[in-house]
Amino acid sequence: MREVFQQELAEVQERLVDIAGHVVVSISTAVQAFGESNVQLAEQVIASDPLIDDKAAALDELAIDIIARQSPVARDLRIVVSALRISASLERMGDLARHIAMLARYRFPMQVVPESLQPTFAEMGRHDIEVATLLRELLETQDLSIAERIEAADEHVDRLHRQVFAQVLGTAWEGAAHATVDATLASRYHERFADHAVGIARKVKYLATGDWVGAEPHEHDLEPVQPEA
Amino acid sequence: MREVFQQELAEVQERLVDIAGHVVVSISTAVQAFGESNVQLAEQVIASDPLIDDKAAALDELAIDIIARQSPVARDLRIVVSALRISASLERMGDLARHIAMLARYRFPMQVVPESLQPTFAEMGRHDIEVATLLRELLETQDLSIAERIEAADEHVDRLHRQVFAQVLGTAWEGAAHATVDATLASRYHERFADHAVGIARKVKYLATGDWVGAEPHEHDLEPVQPEA
Repeated sequence: MREVFQQELAEVQERLVDIAGHVVVSISTAVQAFGESNVQLAEQVIASDPLIDDKAAALDELAIDIIARQSPVARDLRIVVSALRISASLERMGDLARHIAMLARYRFPMQVVPESLQPTFAEMGRHDIEVATLLRELLETQDLSIAERIEAADEHVDRLHRQVFAQVLGTAWEGAAHATVDATLASRYHERFADHAVGIARKVKYLATGDWVGAEPHEHDLEPVQPEA
Repeated sequence: MREVFQQELAEVQERLVDIAGHVVVSISTAVQAFGESNVQLAEQVIASDPLIDDKAAALDELAIDIIARQSPVARDLRIVVSALRISASLERMGDLARHIAMLARYRFPMQVVPESLQPTFAEMGRHDIEVATLLRELLETQDLSIAERIEAADEHVDRLHRQVFAQVLGTAWEGAAHATVDATLASRYHERFADHAVGIARKVKYLATGDWVGAEPHEHDLEPVQPEA
């Protein structure tokens, strides 16, 4: 029984790694679609999101089935319950990549954000891709040093999120209201994407160490932006 | 054993109702703080959010403990697993109420949104309060007709969310960039709040009927806003 259970846990882990791999592809493609205003790439992200949803739902079914058949307790049970939570967060990360792609598709052939913001979003996009890539690696290797690197990348994303607002509210901002709306939403999507990765990394760390630092998707309480004088 | 289990399920349900009640208070207070620019009320929401987080975490511990001790299967297991998911969504609804309150606190003594948007946000706020109130009632009574009313209220919120963007992008919009950013974020928070309630309502419905219409927090794919001509 124990051996079967370990095999099933390995299957759960493999599936989480697989879903995380799809999220890496989605965010990488969405960031490229956003940066290059590439509508074909945007369509790819949007079209492939249901696959992530289906894989997450199938994993949830497997996890519930394992609990029902194996009646795990203690740490074993927590691992399976955490898999349910991790799959929900991965599914949400896929949604956020899709939201970024939808902005790109909708504005095509224009860029979503004006020239002046593009370097900031390009950097934020790179960090989101890094976060997803690290997350996949963390889920595969369970190497906890990767969790720290995810937190560090998330801090970059938060800094860039604040920088977007600083630019939008600066005197040099040339965007119309629709560009302000788009930049706000796009920045929020990028920020939440990294937040979910931090939430997952903390769950993985908790399972390994028992050191519970937070159950739910982490979110910094960014102060809202400064009003203009 | 069965009787103990039923008592424990009743305890889980009571706790969900209790947390939902706190979410009703939070969103009601946040909406009032936002509408009246009342910093004391905003502080109340912000200060009380950790209580919701703690209650959700305690409920999760109870649910995991029930699974470990009682080894429920089939529908019983799904009820307990759903409680974990519902508590995560309630916790997130509390966060979104806090975000709305933080905008009000940050802009105080100014209003977060200009005069022209206040009726729209007031209406959106009323629907969010309605959604939370109905959700609490649904969790308490398991009366599935309430789930339909939650979906209907969410549709109002989505309509108002689109209306905010239409106003921000209209020619009569007098807001500066910071008002555009704030209105965008505030509208997104109101919209996501109702989305989570719909997600919970669908889980409750699923448990009662076995008719699975969606596992994860529901979100409409609102098309991004129209660029100005």
